[in-house]
Amino acid sequence: MPVNQEILLKAYPVGTPTVDTFSIREAATPALPAGGVVLKLLWLSVDPYMRGRMSDAKSYAAPFKPGEPVYSGGVAEVIESDNPKLPVGALVMGMMNWARVQAHSGADLTVLDPAQGWGTKLSPSLALGALGMPGFTAWVGLNIHGRPKEGETIVVSAATGAVGSMVCQLAKRKGLRVVGVAGGAEKCAYAVETLGCDACVDHLDPDLKKNLAAACPNGVDIYFENVAGATLAAVMPLMNFFSRIPLCGMISQYNAMTGGGEGPDRSAALWRAILVNRIAVRGFIVFDHAEKQGEFLKEVAPLVASGEIKTRETVSEGLEKAPEAFLSLLKGTNFGKAIVKVA
Amino acid sequence: MPVNQEILLKAYPVGTPTVDTFSIREAATPALPAGGVVLKLLWLSVDPYMRGRMSDAKSYAAPFKPGEPVYSGGVAEVIESDNPKLPVGALVMGMMNWARVQAHSGADLTVLDPAQGWGTKLSPSLALGALGMPGFTAWVGLNIHGRPKEGETIVVSAATGAVGSMVCQLAKRKGLRVVGVAGGAEKCAYAVETLGCDACVDHLDPDLKKNLAAACPNGVDIYFENVAGATLAAVMPLMNFFSRIPLCGMISQYNAMTGGGEGPDRSAALWRAILVNRIAVRGFIVFDHAEKQGEFLKEVAPLVASGEIKTRETVSEGLEKAPEAFLSLLKGTNFGKAIVKVA
Repeated sequence: MPVNQEILLKAYPVGTPTVDTFSIREAATPALPAGGVVLKLLWLSVDPYMRGRMSDAKSYAAPFKPGEPVYSGGVAEVIESDNPKLPVGALVMGMMNWARVQAHSGADLTVLDPAQGWGTKLSPSLALGALGMPGFTAWVGLNIHGRPKEGETIVVSAATGAVGSMVCQLAKRKGLRVVGVAGGAEKCAYAVETLGCDACVDHLDPDLKKNLAAACPNGVDIYFENVAGATLAAVMPLMNFFSRIPLCGMISQYNAMTGGGEGPDRSAALWRAILVNRIAVRGFIVFDHAEKQGEFLKEVAPLVASGEIKTRETVSEGLEKAPEAFLSLLKGTNFGKAIVKVA
Repeated sequence: MPVNQEILLKAYPVGTPTVDTFSIREAATPALPAGGVVLKLLWLSVDPYMRGRMSDAKSYAAPFKPGEPVYSGGVAEVIESDNPKLPVGALVMGMMNWARVQAHSGADLTVLDPAQGWGTKLSPSLALGALGMPGFTAWVGLNIHGRPKEGETIVVSAATGAVGSMVCQLAKRKGLRVVGVAGGAEKCAYAVETLGCDACVDHLDPDLKKNLAAACPNGVDIYFENVAGATLAAVMPLMNFFSRIPLCGMISQYNAMTGGGEGPDRSAALWRAILVNRIAVRGFIVFDHAEKQGEFLKEVAPLVASGEIKTRETVSEGLEKAPEAFLSLLKGTNFGKAIVKVA
C-alpha cells in the first residue's frame, strides 16, 4: 500500500456514473496546516445527494470539481494537531476528502466524545447514518415539514434506506400508520418485521399502484419523498386533503436529470393534485435546520444506543471501494446506510 | 322573453368546451320553498375553477351534473320570502343556478347590506370580484401562503385577472417588487399603469423566459400561480432559496387535463427545483379560510370604495351570454373580472 491515496472525480457524468467517473491516485502525506489537523480517515459516507454535486447545475451544494478529490461525510482520527480542541487521538466527524490521510483546517469538525458512548455503545459509523446527516434529515422532514398527527398515514419511499428507515421508526413511535415502499421482497420484509412498518409495498412490482392503494385504506396524509418517479405517481392519487410532502430527495431521477425526461408530461397532473388536495410540498435540506440538531440527538441517540431504534449498514471495505459503494447506492442494491470502512 | 330560463350543462366536455357544452331551456317559475326564498338573478360570476366542475375527476368541489343547471357565484334580489332574515327586496350573494328566477333554501346566502355601501359606493358585482371570492382568494394566497416581506419580488400570473389584479395591488401596498405576467401589450400596460406593477411580461412573447428573468434581477421570492404551463416553466429557474408558491389555479392546463400531456416530461425538473431551492408549494382554496373573511373585508373594502384599489370588469349582458363569457375566460379574452349582468 502506498503512503497515501485519494479518489478524484474525473469529469461530470452524463446519465448514470460508472467506475470510470472516478480515478484513484497516489498522493504525498500532507503536512500539518497551521491551526489545523492531519486526519486518518476511518469511515466514509456515500449518500444520494452526492450525485447532485457531479454536475454544475444550480443546486444547494457546490459541485465537485473535476480533477479534484471527491468529499463527503467522514469519521477520522486526529493523527497530528495544531489545535488544542482537536487533540491527537480524537475521533472527529465532518466533511472529508476521499483520501486515506489528509490535512484539514479543523473547521466544522465535531468531536465524537467517548463520554457520550462513541466507540463503545455507539459505533462511530452511526455518526454518518442514524445519528448523523441521514437520521437528522429523517427527523427534520418528519417533524418540521411532515407535521405528523397520531392516527395519520405516512408513506415512506426508500423505506429501508438510511433516511427512510429512520422516518419509518420515528413515525411509528408517534402513532402513525406507516407504509413503506422499497425494492424487493427482502427489503419489504425488513421494513415490516424490523422497522415496524404496518405494510411495505415493492416498487418493482408492476401492481405498485394497486398495492399501495390497498395498503392505505384511509389515504395518505404524509408522503416522505426520497425517490420521485413511479412511486410518486402511485402515491399522488392517494393524497388526502391538506396532506404534506416533505421533499427530501428524488433518487430515481438523479441520473435522468442530466438527460431529458421522456413524455408524457406528468407535471400538470402533479400540479393539479397539489392544488385540488391543498397539499403542502416543501423541499428541504437538513443543513437549514442546524439549530435543531441538539434536540434531535437528545431524543434519538438514547433510542439507538438502547436498540429501540434499529440500524443497518452496508459496509464496503477499503477506500478504493468507495466509488462502487456510491454506484450501488444509486442502483438501490445497498441495504440500510451505505458506509465505506477505510481503516 | 319567456317567464323563466335556465342554462344546463349538456355533458362533460373533453378538451376545450364550446357553446354546445351548454343548452338553454325555458322553465316554470318556481314556487316558494318552506323557510326559503325565490331569487331574481341580477349578476352571475364566471370563474376558471368552474372548468374543474365539468368533469368527474376528484376535485375540491362536487362536479356539475350533466342535464342539470350550471351554478356559480351570483347576486340576486329576494322576490318572495319565507325567511325573516332574507326579506323581500334584499340583495343577496351566494351560489346560484344559472336561472333568471330560482327557488333557494336560503342557506349560505349573504345579505349585501346597503349600510355598508352596497348598491351605492359599491356595485353589487364587486361581491363577485374584488370583494368576493376572487379578491379574498388573492388576499389569502398572498398573505397566508405567500408570507410576503417588504423588498421581496413577487411574480403574479394572470396579473390582470380577477385574482391577479388584486394580488398585484395588495403586494405593492406591502412594499414588494411586483412583476405581472399577462397576455398582450394592452393588459401589460394596464398592469403597470393602473395596477402599479413594477414590470409586466407578455406570456405570448416567445422571449417570455428572457424577459421575465430581466424583470426579476433579484430572483423570485413568491410566485402566485394561476396558470401553470409556459409561465410556470419560465418562473421556476428564477425561484430563490426558501421561496413560496401559493398554487391557486392553472388555467392554461384546465382543458388539457381531460386529454393527455405531451412530452417531454417536465415533472422531474419541477420537483428538483422545489427540492434544491427549498420551495414551499401550497395548493389552496379560499373556502378553507372562511374564518378570515371578516379581516379581509375590513382591510380591503374601504380601499375599493375609496378607489385606492382599482377594479375592472368585463360585463356580458344577458343570461344567455353566460356560456360565452365562460369560454372567453378560458381563452383569456376577458379583461379583469368576468361578470354576466342578468337583469
